[in-house]
Amino acid sequence: MDIGLIGLGKMGGNMRERMRRAGVTVVGYDRNPDLADVASLGALVEALPSPKVVWVMVPAGDPTHETIAQLRDLLGQGDVVVDGGNSRWTDDLRHAGELAEKGIGFVDCGVSGGVWGLTEGYALMVGGAPDDIAKVQPAFDALRPSASTGFVRAGSVGAGHFSKMVHNGIEYAMMQAYAEGYELLEKVDLVDDVTEVFGSWREGTVVRSWLLDLLVKALEEDPGLASIRGYAEDSGEGRWTVEAAIDNAVPTPAIAASLFARFSSRQDDSPAMKAIAAMRNQFGGHAVKSE
Amino acid sequence: MDIGLIGLGKMGGNMRERMRRAGVTVVGYDRNPDLADVASLGALVEALPSPKVVWVMVPAGDPTHETIAQLRDLLGQGDVVVDGGNSRWTDDLRHAGELAEKGIGFVDCGVSGGVWGLTEGYALMVGGAPDDIAKVQPAFDALRPSASTGFVRAGSVGAGHFSKMVHNGIEYAMMQAYAEGYELLEKVDLVDDVTEVFGSWREGTVVRSWLLDLLVKALEEDPGLASIRGYAEDSGEGRWTVEAAIDNAVPTPAIAASLFARFSSRQDDSPAMKAIAAMRNQFGGHAVKSE
Amino acid sequence: MDIGLIGLGKMGGNMRERMRRAGVTVVGYDRNPDLADVASLGALVEALPSPKVVWVMVPAGDPTHETIAQLRDLLGQGDVVVDGGNSRWTDDLRHAGELAEKGIGFVDCGVSGGVWGLTEGYALMVGGAPDDIAKVQPAFDALRPSASTGFVRAGSVGAGHFSKMVHNGIEYAMMQAYAEGYELLEKVDLVDDVTEVFGSWREGTVVRSWLLDLLVKALEEDPGLASIRGYAEDSGEGRWTVEAAIDNAVPTPAIAASLFARFSSRQDDSPAMKAIAAMRNQFGGHAVKSE
Amino acid sequence: MDIGLIGLGKMGGNMRERMRRAGVTVVGYDRNPDLADVASLGALVEALPSPKVVWVMVPAGDPTHETIAQLRDLLGQGDVVVDGGNSRWTDDLRHAGELAEKGIGFVDCGVSGGVWGLTEGYALMVGGAPDDIAKVQPAFDALRPSASTGFVRAGSVGAGHFSKMVHNGIEYAMMQAYAEGYELLEKVDLVDDVTEVFGSWREGTVVRSWLLDLLVKALEEDPGLASIRGYAEDSGEGRWTVEAAIDNAVPTPAIAASLFARFSSRQDDSPAMKAIAAMRNQFGGHAVKSE
Repeated sequence: MDIGLIGLGKMGGNMRERMRRAGVTVVGYDRNPDLADVASLGALVEALPSPKVVWVMVPAGDPTHETIAQLRDLLGQGDVVVDGGNSRWTDDLRHAGELAEKGIGFVDCGVSGGVWGLTEGYALMVGGAPDDIAKVQPAFDALRPSASTGFVRAGSVGAGHFSKMVHNGIEYAMMQAYAEGYELLEKVDLVDDVTEVFGSWREGTVVRSWLLDLLVKALEEDPGLASIRGYAEDSGEGRWTVEAAIDNAVPTPAIAASLFARFSSRQDDSPAMKAIAAMRNQFGGHAVKSE
Repeated sequence: MDIGLIGLGKMGGNMRERMRRAGVTVVGYDRNPDLADVASLGALVEALPSPKVVWVMVPAGDPTHETIAQLRDLLGQGDVVVDGGNSRWTDDLRHAGELAEKGIGFVDCGVSGGVWGLTEGYALMVGGAPDDIAKVQPAFDALRPSASTGFVRAGSVGAGHFSKMVHNGIEYAMMQAYAEGYELLEKVDLVDDVTEVFGSWREGTVVRSWLLDLLVKALEEDPGLASIRGYAEDSGEGRWTVEAAIDNAVPTPAIAASLFARFSSRQDDSPAMKAIAAMRNQFGGHAVKSE
Repeated sequence: MDIGLIGLGKMGGNMRERMRRAGVTVVGYDRNPDLADVASLGALVEALPSPKVVWVMVPAGDPTHETIAQLRDLLGQGDVVVDGGNSRWTDDLRHAGELAEKGIGFVDCGVSGGVWGLTEGYALMVGGAPDDIAKVQPAFDALRPSASTGFVRAGSVGAGHFSKMVHNGIEYAMMQAYAEGYELLEKVDLVDDVTEVFGSWREGTVVRSWLLDLLVKALEEDPGLASIRGYAEDSGEGRWTVEAAIDNAVPTPAIAASLFARFSSRQDDSPAMKAIAAMRNQFGGHAVKSE
Repeated sequence: MDIGLIGLGKMGGNMRERMRRAGVTVVGYDRNPDLADVASLGALVEALPSPKVVWVMVPAGDPTHETIAQLRDLLGQGDVVVDGGNSRWTDDLRHAGELAEKGIGFVDCGVSGGVWGLTEGYALMVGGAPDDIAKVQPAFDALRPSASTGFVRAGSVGAGHFSKMVHNGIEYAMMQAYAEGYELLEKVDLVDDVTEVFGSWREGTVVRSWLLDLLVKALEEDPGLASIRGYAEDSGEGRWTVEAAIDNAVPTPAIAASLFARFSSRQDDSPAMKAIAAMRNQFGGHAVKSE
């Protein structure tokens, strides 16, 4: 098949390569002309046979909104836009509606895989109408790890990004699980070599996982993680997961705790804990630490 | 009545004063001779009529263990020891057993009141046999805020400190509640003067409390709590509360969260968040901050 | 002053009464004609002198949207609408904008007080332009507990409801604090009478508060709370507080835990815990309980 | 090598079989004579050449205490006892001390593997003196998945069980992570087939793991987990992990949340939430649900 791919950064570039290796004809566009196959979105659309399939792989929010708005003008009846970025699932409903006015189909696709996807394949969670998805299927098959793994049609439009969002929420809490255990083992004198303990868990245990493999790799590269600060960004999906949980009255204490731990990691000082210290000083005369 | 009081620090000194104002004859001992009325525990015991009542008000753990061991040698049948310190309730069972071998009664008394107790009175949570408690009742009545408030016989030996421990666990989560709200109000530009908002809550709201009054006082003295670091110690009862909750399979997520927030406040860097950052770097190529 | 009041339910009815006792002329409207002073919104607006002040006290969401839309048609330049309901602060920005197109001012007012407000007064957190607020001030003064308490201009439009939202978030975690302590004391055999322990805390302790007074009252009316199910609704502000915290990267673990505990209390069975039981069964052969 | 194995239940029986397949001579004892190779502990010890190695695989607590006390009488200088059960690491220090008085070595070994261990091998976390461990090494090598995986000397006595305890704490939070995501996906209408979504995550995603494989297997066997109640026991290590975290001032919010979720899952009604409902009723007149 032929596909247009917009956004050729770290992620998009690797995806172009993996699709090409599988025989998909990819026309890539990027604002950076050094990365692009064509000079404009117009040229990209021109280069595709009908029905045209265009995969958007740009940052969520305004860049995605704007790209889809442009594609709305360039594409027509029967074409399909895939949003493979990290868009919030609520944005999908809006994008699908805007494109539907012109008869353009929309498919949302949550993509997991990171820097390993090129060689190991990407896991794809897809939402949309079966007819629209069918037009993209050869590209999905090129990207997934194998013909029987790493692809699901999760439901109608939005279900792909929603599933990917929940995937990431789970990921937050799994990482927090290992991180809490790591800190406890590091803290006690009893345990000699925490890296070896984690390493021993890679086979035969209940906690074995790909994330564990990565953590062991990191520990072996940098014992005690001496060179890394305990500072963690969050990329949105964790927040959205907790917000979706709240909207649906689903208790998610572990995922929320993981999110809050990241927030705390980025604070130089905690206003909340200032308030705690101030109250303790007031009622008990407990000393406070000065700034 | 006559009572011996061991430990005349900030707390014990004020309690001696409040009891004396109420007509109780207090013989005080402290390692610091400047504070003491007598030169030794032996002299303190000598000075008391039988049945002798001795109130121990020293730090929990070894100081209390040792003081009670000495009193075991000095006192006899029908005398009573009161532990008014912050002992863990499990220690009470041991102390009571050791004293009972010589016919000495034991009463545990959790004391709330802090620096305000001298004028406002102390709230007392008491555990022990009714006969033993009766021998101490005039002292309890002198210390409590009024004849109808601030005293409870919570149950048998240990129940006083157990109740005080739970009181402090509740206190942790209440303080955390205000602290979280404080930080959120401080963070948004929308709200002009957080001190005034908190101040307005002191009457007519669901959240009004003595702790709120204290926090408002602190905010008025130091707007934005600019001079205080977000660093909070914990004095044991919060930990014991969560441990007792775990022993009894009682979910205490808010109290546990409050305790963990204090732990975090005392860390320069978080080993757990180093692990999070390391994993993110491994799978996504996300940048880490260096030490 | 004269004020129009829309919504005369449990809350609005008491507020009309309290304002009238303070000399404010209140024209009340309610869909229930038995409660209303006038037959329509039009009649209410007619009855007011200019500048007209209308206080909306109807459920948040559509009822408030619709009422404000109607008032937009009925009022004019220099008039003021007060939203005293439980609207989300983000709605305030929208309402203010809609009214501003016709020169109508808007003030948002978070109201705390519940069933006790009639006699004790209401705490008011107000957002809006000082000029608009000035037109409503006599009504605010009638409602607040006293001339020096229970009122704050928290900031511009939205700041009133935002502050009230945070107030309620704090309330959630304070209630959870007492609730966790209550459950732990109830669970252990050591403590004889939990109601008495809580009662003793009402004076002289760090945890004394109005909420504690209410809990003691409830426990005295129904020892062991035998007649009440452990089922708790939530009215929105707790959810919004956690969502605002997430938006602002503020850790609120205790408030979130309180919210999740309410969600759990309303579940007959937990899908999450089904998944836990299923995994335990798979790896350990642990028995599951059947439906 | 020769080894005595005490406790031939589900776990011990499989371990005997795996050791025998690897050429270790195992003399097994169990209270159930149908499972045992010898009739008594005395006969078991008789059957072993010196230095004798005896592996204890009985329930933690009294059964393990009693078995080790008997072995202390039966064994002598240079022999080694291995505790492979789920003992708390603090018990190890006591057991090692008791055995050391007679010159008997002690090794603690946390074993992960469950019902899959016979074929896949067991992961072993070991604490003790290198000399003592060396005497057991052929047995460890028989049990571990392969010569390069699934074994670690974590440190001195206690370090094995401590590491296994932390492993299980991590396991709790990982299971909770999947469980929360599962509930959220189940709750929304948007997602058509949650089992398929989880199944698609088994390759190429960040959350792939052995636990995920098990959960997918359970979902495929029983879609919607319709036959399982949301009721989860806990076996001790989760509690000990949080207690160790508290002792070491390590924040473990996700593991604690996982533990509390299990506690809640076993409650017919929540006393804490009764208290919440009672307070809401008192201040807001909110209806309560009756028992």
